[in-house]
Amino acid sequence: MPSELSFIDRIRRRATLPRSSRLILGIGDDCAIFRPPASPIDLLFTTDLLIEGTHFLRSTHTPEDAGWKALARGLSDIAAMGGDPRFCLLSLAIAPWQTDRWVDAFYRGLLRLARRESTALAGGDLSRAPQAACDIVVCGDVPHGAALRRDTARPGDLLYVSGALGGSALGLVKGKRDPHAWKRHTRPEPRLSLGRFLRHSLHASAAMDLSDGLSLDLRRLCLASGLAADITAPPRFPGATLELSLHGGEDYELLFAVPPQTNVPAGHQSLLLTPIGVLRKGRPGHIRLDGKPLAALGYDHLRGGFR
Amino acid sequence: MPSELSFIDRIRRRATLPRSSRLILGIGDDCAIFRPPASPIDLLFTTDLLIEGTHFLRSTHTPEDAGWKALARGLSDIAAMGGDPRFCLLSLAIAPWQTDRWVDAFYRGLLRLARRESTALAGGDLSRAPQAACDIVVCGDVPHGAALRRDTARPGDLLYVSGALGGSALGLVKGKRDPHAWKRHTRPEPRLSLGRFLRHSLHASAAMDLSDGLSLDLRRLCLASGLAADITAPPRFPGATLELSLHGGEDYELLFAVPPQTNVPAGHQSLLLTPIGVLRKGRPGHIRLDGKPLAALGYDHLRGGFR
Repeated sequence: MPSELSFIDRIRRRATLPRSSRLILGIGDDCAIFRPPASPIDLLFTTDLLIEGTHFLRSTHTPEDAGWKALARGLSDIAAMGGDPRFCLLSLAIAPWQTDRWVDAFYRGLLRLARRESTALAGGDLSRAPQAACDIVVCGDVPHGAALRRDTARPGDLLYVSGALGGSALGLVKGKRDPHAWKRHTRPEPRLSLGRFLRHSLHASAAMDLSDGLSLDLRRLCLASGLAADITAPPRFPGATLELSLHGGEDYELLFAVPPQTNVPAGHQSLLLTPIGVLRKGRPGHIRLDGKPLAALGYDHLRGGFR
Repeated sequence: MPSELSFIDRIRRRATLPRSSRLILGIGDDCAIFRPPASPIDLLFTTDLLIEGTHFLRSTHTPEDAGWKALARGLSDIAAMGGDPRFCLLSLAIAPWQTDRWVDAFYRGLLRLARRESTALAGGDLSRAPQAACDIVVCGDVPHGAALRRDTARPGDLLYVSGALGGSALGLVKGKRDPHAWKRHTRPEPRLSLGRFLRHSLHASAAMDLSDGLSLDLRRLCLASGLAADITAPPRFPGATLELSLHGGEDYELLFAVPPQTNVPAGHQSLLLTPIGVLRKGRPGHIRLDGKPLAALGYDHLRGGFR
């Protein structure tokens, strides 16, 4: 099996976008962008799988956790593009072990986050399956042409991350012995308010969410923009090692770039915004940490592990 | 586990639609309907799971068949509302047995139908999983307010079906010994042109696609419109029994209602349009076949079988 990046490249080459589709952006960013005719908005679409054994474990995640996380992953993609979520569609494959009560609690966790973020559950599909899985599609919107993308950074732009990294990966290692990290892992917080701020007030030149680890996700942003990057160590979640902060997935913080003259505040609401480096001309996707090459060791969904 | 109908009802009651969501229609029809601000169109969204062992078998379905069918199911929902498909998003959970070559052929089958129906592949998600599954979201559009729905039929409206029923279920029984029925099962044809004709020229009062068997799907239409129905036997696919034509799933023909004075042609393109009965006031969802009560025996996705 090829790596995820090369596989997605191959599909993208084969999936042409007919003009009639009204798609502004297709495969390869956090969301696809659709432009309705004569409307002042662009629509954002993202889809995320949540699979038993891969994204959650029935032994450790409560059904409420799984429902929350299923939606949070999609909302994080909407946040990364600076959007407001509108609605979601949920496809649920129900395994024999999943009781009526489990499924009810799953919906409870999902709908709790949905209500908080004014996201309607608009429909979906249901099926029996040998293995529990769900797929969630979230639709959001931004003003016409205003979506934050990965492919629009310029050389010299400064790189920032929100919050502290490695917490979710630490939670996965420590489990409930570290309740703070465990909560980061099980109840990720989509950075919707920050995303809107980046689009509306800061005019970020590029953004994406950190779902698969900084080293891999930054590489994706660099490849999309055709740039290289020099960074220093990002802020670490309390207790997380440097390794976890660089390569651990599922932090769902935002990575963004701004032109060098931008006045970036030290924080947004209670979330720290920390400069971690600069984008530069060079071999696309090449990243140096404190001057030394940094391998993209984040989570590859096709190879099914940290590379 | 409750039945699918009662389960969906329960979710619907809990999933409120905030006004900010711009949703015209949520859970319970073939598609959700979203109204972009200031635009002359409404957008339709549908999502369909395709699961190994439930919707396809690796031993009998080619990967091209599976890819075709994954998209055809969604396109059929767009057809049922009279829409034009625009784009789709594909989430793919890849099992250990699925080779690079299998996945390539799956995309080939899907993209072949996508190109024919001018449907762009706009994005998706990829993951490793113990079991092969995919979920596909299709977005289509209709002119503002023109979508065909299930809940808008009136007493006295006549009921019609397109084509002949029971072919897909017959294919499942006979396999490749009946190549004609087998093709109906493996390569369903979404009735997009007919759907547009029903909306634009015939002004159908209600429509839906036949995915789970006439007896169950007609019951859903009747429940949504608050009506009962009297029908006669529908046209049968060559070789199909009456039982298969009434309760067999996955025909993906259209079931529709028209006001009694409507001039319905005998066919649309090469597809027969056959009157099968009439909607009437009465216990909602109650259906009589030739005067005798007809049980809804179609496929229930939660109970995992024909009831």
